[in-house]
Amino acid sequence: MELSKRAREIQASPIRKLNPYANSAKKRGIKVYHLNIGQPDLPTPKEMLKAYHEFSDEVLEYGPSQGLDIYREGLVKYYGNLGIELKVDDIIVTTGGSEAITFAMMVVCEVGDEIIVPEPFYTNYNGFATMAGITLIPLTTYAENGFALPGNSVIEAKISPKTKAIMLCNPGNPTGTVYSREEIFRIADLAKRKGLYFISDEVYREFIYDGLSHTSVLEVPDFEENAILVDSVSKRYSACGARIGCIVSKNKEIMSSVLKFAQARLCPPTVDQLVANAGIYLPETYFEQLKVEYQSRRDLVLSELEKIPGVICKKPEGAFYVFAKLPIEDAEDFIIWMLKEFQIDNETVMAAPGDGFYATPGLGKNELRLAYILCKEDLKKAMYIFQNGLAEYQKLHIGKASS
Amino acid sequence: MELSKRAREIQASPIRKLNPYANSAKKRGIKVYHLNIGQPDLPTPKEMLKAYHEFSDEVLEYGPSQGLDIYREGLVKYYGNLGIELKVDDIIVTTGGSEAITFAMMVVCEVGDEIIVPEPFYTNYNGFATMAGITLIPLTTYAENGFALPGNSVIEAKISPKTKAIMLCNPGNPTGTVYSREEIFRIADLAKRKGLYFISDEVYREFIYDGLSHTSVLEVPDFEENAILVDSVSKRYSACGARIGCIVSKNKEIMSSVLKFAQARLCPPTVDQLVANAGIYLPETYFEQLKVEYQSRRDLVLSELEKIPGVICKKPEGAFYVFAKLPIEDAEDFIIWMLKEFQIDNETVMAAPGDGFYATPGLGKNELRLAYILCKEDLKKAMYIFQNGLAEYQKLHIGKASS
Ligand SMILES: Cc1ncc(COP(=O)(O)O)c(C=O)c1O
Ligand SMILES: Cc1ncc(COP(=O)(O)O)c(C=O)c1O
Repeated sequence: MELSKRAREIQASPIRKLNPYANSAKKRGIKVYHLNIGQPDLPTPKEMLKAYHEFSDEVLEYGPSQGLDIYREGLVKYYGNLGIELKVDDIIVTTGGSEAITFAMMVVCEVGDEIIVPEPFYTNYNGFATMAGITLIPLTTYAENGFALPGNSVIEAKISPKTKAIMLCNPGNPTGTVYSREEIFRIADLAKRKGLYFISDEVYREFIYDGLSHTSVLEVPDFEENAILVDSVSKRYSACGARIGCIVSKNKEIMSSVLKFAQARLCPPTVDQLVANAGIYLPETYFEQLKVEYQSRRDLVLSELEKIPGVICKKPEGAFYVFAKLPIEDAEDFIIWMLKEFQIDNETVMAAPGDGFYATPGLGKNELRLAYILCKEDLKKAMYIFQNGLAEYQKLHIGKASS
Repeated sequence: MELSKRAREIQASPIRKLNPYANSAKKRGIKVYHLNIGQPDLPTPKEMLKAYHEFSDEVLEYGPSQGLDIYREGLVKYYGNLGIELKVDDIIVTTGGSEAITFAMMVVCEVGDEIIVPEPFYTNYNGFATMAGITLIPLTTYAENGFALPGNSVIEAKISPKTKAIMLCNPGNPTGTVYSREEIFRIADLAKRKGLYFISDEVYREFIYDGLSHTSVLEVPDFEENAILVDSVSKRYSACGARIGCIVSKNKEIMSSVLKFAQARLCPPTVDQLVANAGIYLPETYFEQLKVEYQSRRDLVLSELEKIPGVICKKPEGAFYVFAKLPIEDAEDFIIWMLKEFQIDNETVMAAPGDGFYATPGLGKNELRLAYILCKEDLKKAMYIFQNGLAEYQKLHIGKASS
């Protein structure tokens, strides 16, 4: 009895698959700095956690499939503050941004259809696509120029009769790239001309540095039929465990089909929606402080990386990741080696290997992703270990890279 | 720009699609007894809700994709109490039983593959199958004999090279049917001989009446490779809004693929797992009281239904549903009429139309599902309204049924 093709082919999470090495390092008494995973360390706002403490319903009921009214109204306010005018019915609450992505993919693509997406991309797009029977068509972007989007002709060459959508992550995971207003409008224009949907993953919206501002796909005028936003509270409020996201579109046909998908799984978690809702009423200073903290972390990690000869990495302007090309052959081998063989004062560092963030086989072998989700003191130690580990690893592998 | 075929074809939930009629009745000041939806009215145990109140982590983090260790260990204990010996790694916690069903379907079926399932079945199997590109092959069962499973020859005739699994819901939603130990073993034997998986949906395990006992697919000896259990805390603990379920199998290949599916969506909700976990340590009297309460509700609903001439409905032995055949042509029309036109003392009743619980087109038109999830006092009033409404509706439609 064989399992399904999708069960056999689905990618192991590059972010989580090396955990056994980390666990056995920990068993040997070694402290591991986890720069592999996008789990922010900042405390979840107390105002939000209070919603757990104050839940007083007698029966923990299913909510509406589209999400609790109170929370959808809260989201209208949240997007309104960003200058995006929505109605409650433009929003369906999902179980994490993860489910929003799945719904978006399934609503536009039949089995065998294609979505164009710049690579490296958020690695779990691969998993969702495999489960839904969708093919991701990668647009390769490069560390050398900050993972900039290619020109229209390159993108148009990827469009086939099966292409249903272009998907962007803005700011990007794993690249940290922030697309400019012009770029978002250019892609929207192209999508409109070619009759494609534009799925925009904006879960890192608030993580933007250097005074830049964010452009949402929902800001593009006359684009209501094509625009699909996927969003999440996970990163924004350090509330990953709540599993609350949403999908937003003004295309009524899309929303009425997504509602049917949503009805099949009944509803997103009830109390966690109340927790997410409390986030909407945080003072504005919350995001200002968040930006200041992450920007200074980014600066620290970047300045350390820049000291390492042969590392290629432009300064990312958003999210909380750095995706770097290393002067070695096999980043995964290096990461495993760090966990198995290398430590300083009984401490080591874990990163996520780069190849899992690509759809094109063979790419990303010498790249890795670092998430700057630790306090600066820890980040400093982690980067020190990383630098020294890399130097030692290179010594051990001299000559090998050219073999 | 067309949406995907699955987006256009997915069934609207028969349980929820008539809600607009109920809402407009409520706006007219009419009280609606909701017998359409499987949302228990019993209070969620306080011991469980306490886990929300006591959550004191600083950061609401992602948990492991397979579920929190503490909760998986709790589940080992829960199944152990039922005489089912499991290891922690036989269990992956899911976001509701809903996600467990999706994972089970996807892990055994490639797009285009088939699962055999007795109809009427839990209507959302349709939605999950559509999203996953799977075809459900119905085994029709009948109100007249309590929706008993057909013999092996009937089942074997449905098996094609694309058939990957047989799926049973035990006790059944919407039928309330409880399969005997012999039947579970017979289906298991057939599945084994034919090289099929046996997916068993046991979310109503504890809802069994008349002193009967439940047989889990996990109790079948020498069946580890074929058996997949899907489960949920929703009904068991009146905790539908927690969105916690699990998938269980001793087949390591299955579990390692399901883990990859699970990693793509990161994790089930964190605090809700702690809530679910508290359920495991409730005193045994909890389920005893639950049974007594639901059995007496069932008896009430049944005795009222039996008074109505022409209603066909054997006494269901489990879950909290009655699926009845009515002496009318179109149960959906009747349900809408009840919401739009009929009331007694400003009250009316809502049921779920039967046809959405079938995969075979045309079946179930004159059937409906009633959920006995209200206290007896309300159920009594609801059944009184139902009887009178049905009589009145029949008068209005005299002659029509034969036209
Ligand atoms: C780009 C991006 N989109 C979506 C998600 C999904 O997050 P969640 O399901 O926690 O909302 C993540 C999580 O890391 C992400 O990085
Ligand atoms: C037979 C059956 N299976 C699974 C489910 C899914 O429930 P949940 O996702 O709340 O666990 C239900 C809910 O009504 C059900 O009746």
